Amino acid sequence: MAKKVQTAITPTRTEDYPQWYQQVVKASDMAESSPVRGCMVIKPWGYALWENIQKSMDAKFKKTGVRNAYFPLFIPLSFLEKEAEHVEGFAKECAVVTHHRLEAGPEGGLVPAGELAEPLIVRPTSETIIGDSFAKWITSYRDLPVLINQWANVVRWEMRTRTFLRTSEFLWQEGHTAHATSEEAISRTEQMLEVYANFAEEYLAMPVIRGRKSDSERFPGAVDTLCIEAMMQDRKALQAGTSHFLGQNFAKGSGITFQSADEKEEYAWTTSWGTSTRLIGGMIMTHGDDDGVIMPPRIAPAHIVLLPIFRKPEEKEAVLAYTRKLAEELSQVTYHGRAIEVEVDEREIGGARGWDWIKKGIPVRAEIGPRDMKEDSVFMARRDLSPKEKRGVKREELLATLPAILDEIQQTLFDRALAHREANTRPMDDKEAFYAWFTPENEEKPEIHGGFALSHWCGDGDCEEKIKTDLKVTIRCIPFEGEEEEGTCICCGKPSKKRVIFAKAY
Amino acid sequence: MAKKVQTAITPTRTEDYPQWYQQVVKASDMAESSPVRGCMVIKPWGYALWENIQKSMDAKFKKTGVRNAYFPLFIPLSFLEKEAEHVEGFAKECAVVTHHRLEAGPEGGLVPAGELAEPLIVRPTSETIIGDSFAKWITSYRDLPVLINQWANVVRWEMRTRTFLRTSEFLWQEGHTAHATSEEAISRTEQMLEVYANFAEEYLAMPVIRGRKSDSERFPGAVDTLCIEAMMQDRKALQAGTSHFLGQNFAKGSGITFQSADEKEEYAWTTSWGTSTRLIGGMIMTHGDDDGVIMPPRIAPAHIVLLPIFRKPEEKEAVLAYTRKLAEELSQVTYHGRAIEVEVDEREIGGARGWDWIKKGIPVRAEIGPRDMKEDSVFMARRDLSPKEKRGVKREELLATLPAILDEIQQTLFDRALAHREANTRPMDDKEAFYAWFTPENEEKPEIHGGFALSHWCGDGDCEEKIKTDLKVTIRCIPFEGEEEEGTCICCGKPSKKRVIFAKAY
Ligand SMILES: [Zn+2]
Ligand SMILES: [Zn+2]
Repeated sequence: MAKKVQTAITPTRTEDYPQWYQQVVKASDMAESSPVRGCMVIKPWGYALWENIQKSMDAKFKKTGVRNAYFPLFIPLSFLEKEAEHVEGFAKECAVVTHHRLEAGPEGGLVPAGELAEPLIVRPTSETIIGDSFAKWITSYRDLPVLINQWANVVRWEMRTRTFLRTSEFLWQEGHTAHATSEEAISRTEQMLEVYANFAEEYLAMPVIRGRKSDSERFPGAVDTLCIEAMMQDRKALQAGTSHFLGQNFAKGSGITFQSADEKEEYAWTTSWGTSTRLIGGMIMTHGDDDGVIMPPRIAPAHIVLLPIFRKPEEKEAVLAYTRKLAEELSQVTYHGRAIEVEVDEREIGGARGWDWIKKGIPVRAEIGPRDMKEDSVFMARRDLSPKEKRGVKREELLATLPAILDEIQQTLFDRALAHREANTRPMDDKEAFYAWFTPENEEKPEIHGGFALSHWCGDGDCEEKIKTDLKVTIRCIPFEGEEEEGTCICCGKPSKKRVIFAKAY
Repeated sequence: MAKKVQTAITPTRTEDYPQWYQQVVKASDMAESSPVRGCMVIKPWGYALWENIQKSMDAKFKKTGVRNAYFPLFIPLSFLEKEAEHVEGFAKECAVVTHHRLEAGPEGGLVPAGELAEPLIVRPTSETIIGDSFAKWITSYRDLPVLINQWANVVRWEMRTRTFLRTSEFLWQEGHTAHATSEEAISRTEQMLEVYANFAEEYLAMPVIRGRKSDSERFPGAVDTLCIEAMMQDRKALQAGTSHFLGQNFAKGSGITFQSADEKEEYAWTTSWGTSTRLIGGMIMTHGDDDGVIMPPRIAPAHIVLLPIFRKPEEKEAVLAYTRKLAEELSQVTYHGRAIEVEVDEREIGGARGWDWIKKGIPVRAEIGPRDMKEDSVFMARRDLSPKEKRGVKREELLATLPAILDEIQQTLFDRALAHREANTRPMDDKEAFYAWFTPENEEKPEIHGGFALSHWCGDGDCEEKIKTDLKVTIRCIPFEGEEEEGTCICCGKPSKKRVIFAKAY
């Protein structure tokens, strides 16, 4: 038996993928759980990543004419009652505010007082409260389109939570637009999905499949839900963003009407679209390895860490000065319109220091000892290569080539993830093989198995439901790509015209 | 009697300052009240201003080594009980979450269900929940200092609300730091106050007085509260930012201890500091005139609006093309490291269009008609001058001089505000005169009166309380500036060594 390779994370992905995920998050120092049930604390290394995601995505939104605004955290109960009336599957797990004061209790401590006449709900999403504003803002076709986005925290009470992937409170953006015509709203729905897809692929180095949800997976109240789906390293799907065409449903609920050019009173056509801190979980599971997180350079909180090394006290000053000067020089270099972000780690804690940065996933590490300094060079390592693969690089060369190296890492991550997806995506036409593929050998503690099955589906919800019940496999999307072709439903054998993507999912 | 000048805002500042404020906010399209009691909707023009405030301030924070993070929206009741024990004046008006589900009620509608074992409070501020994290993060002096900031929404239940100035939900940043020594924490407290002061003066063009709060105005639980105070046009003070030295009080409450270099277990020394969307209210009341808001260029959502003008249809295309090209050229120009932001308003609504932008406070307006176009020039107006003061400017000149013009406007706003403050600040040593100055002629609907009184105070809380009760005048701060001098308390006549600032306040 081959000698087991020492890894920074225990267990490894193949040993126990869910545990590996928790350990990677912890080791990266990106987030931790909080004393508030289901809520996370996003620590600086994780939050800086979110800020970069925000900045890049926000710029893409603004380029399409979208503007940011901010709406109340609370939603009056009556707004949700209105929605619940005509929206089946309305999410009911939410935080309910019933009082507006704390008073000293009869036996010490504090007790809720000042009961509200109408309870308030902490927003699980803002369609209704934004709809209320839209109804006021829009009176004529001249006011349209209205293109709004909000960056905000939302709360959906969750019983089983996992950092970044499913938490009771999470951070997200929700876009809401209103249009004069159905065509324009549909085109906006598609446009924003494409913004998400580009962002995922260009920034997160996460290849995604663009498609539409089946009826059962559609956002409650939507006419059409478009989505991007990515494959994680355990071959499960992660929905990385959704864009909904809401038709006139929400406009009717909120009373968003306008006078058309020919002076008729009409309901607006609306869309909504969102992504969240879940993307961070997706990024971790797409690129992380058994040594921890790997940050795609284009959204990494920092690009390079400098690690000064000295053994004798008399070396210290010179090495530190050289290192700090190099940090200064590096931060003058531009990478995709952004200054190179440099970390300098001067802690004297030995080998643990380098491993800390590996686990954090910083793209490039550079050690600087007295000898390197004398040769005006650094000892460089890349996070996409083995931890032991290091090479000497002249200072001038590092300054000149770092952006290209970062681009190479970015491309490597994308290529690897795409190769992984392609290796684990297969057309499947045989029901038995399909069932076998999605059935782990170890039911108790399932090993990594399955993948994306491209199979025919007759369009019947019963077939979808049966596969979900039998295998916990769902239709992730009906992909935009792929020709129509004759086939038979993987479940019932009836005729079908198109393959859809079946997979287990987060 | 002189002919009354037509103004865009009714009433004017002198007619009714509070009403003027509400009307200015409305006319600027920056925010509106929401169906949720006391909560506001921040509209795109207002939110873009907030984004600019965030960007500029955040960069200043990061330069001092502060990093952003994110902590839960909810605070367990027990955390606040702990704080309430040792913090008198603990704010009790807050939103209390008691349930985590909605269920169909017996008579239709939805009712709260799933009662929580322990109620959760929507954060009014995050000392306790962040303290809980600090206690985990900090074990050794090597972990210090910890320098954290959070951009977040907070909720304090308010009965009387006014957009931006006092709302139940508002947006803010709260900085929290922990240090190994008292000296270091005090120096951080001062450093952050200086960051706020610089930001207020350089970006908001709002001159501020730096000082410290008296015992009664100090943040509950703080050892020392530093603040910056600005004078609004109605001569009332607005607290524009506070920075608290918390001593070891909060560290003791949250158990934030560390092992010192000589291996003793010690409590950390902490600070906290915050500013909020209130700054926007302050900016409006500092610079706005009877035609509406005036945006300081360095944080304005946009710098210039282009207003194409054409009467005949055959002129339209050429004028629009010329305008759009100019917009493109202008956005290549840099102003304080940021691309000039250009709005193009192509609406055909006549004179109302120009007035819309005056009321929004955009620094520069440029009309472009067929004749201007022929002369390759625009007809330019500045928001800091009279609406009628316009002049022709060659396109090339506009491109070359716009940054300088914007700087001139920024400086004018600051100078005006400073002159206003100086004109309405006076040393006062006579109690009768002091009382007269702070007593409006019209008690029912007070006219603009008073200002900043620089008066001696003996340091006794009773004197402070008496003046507050009699006049609604409080000690805004004990200013850092100003020499010690012998004098007698404006209230009781006892000896005093320093003048403090008395004023009415928001
Ligand atoms: Zn079927
Ligand atoms: Zn006195």
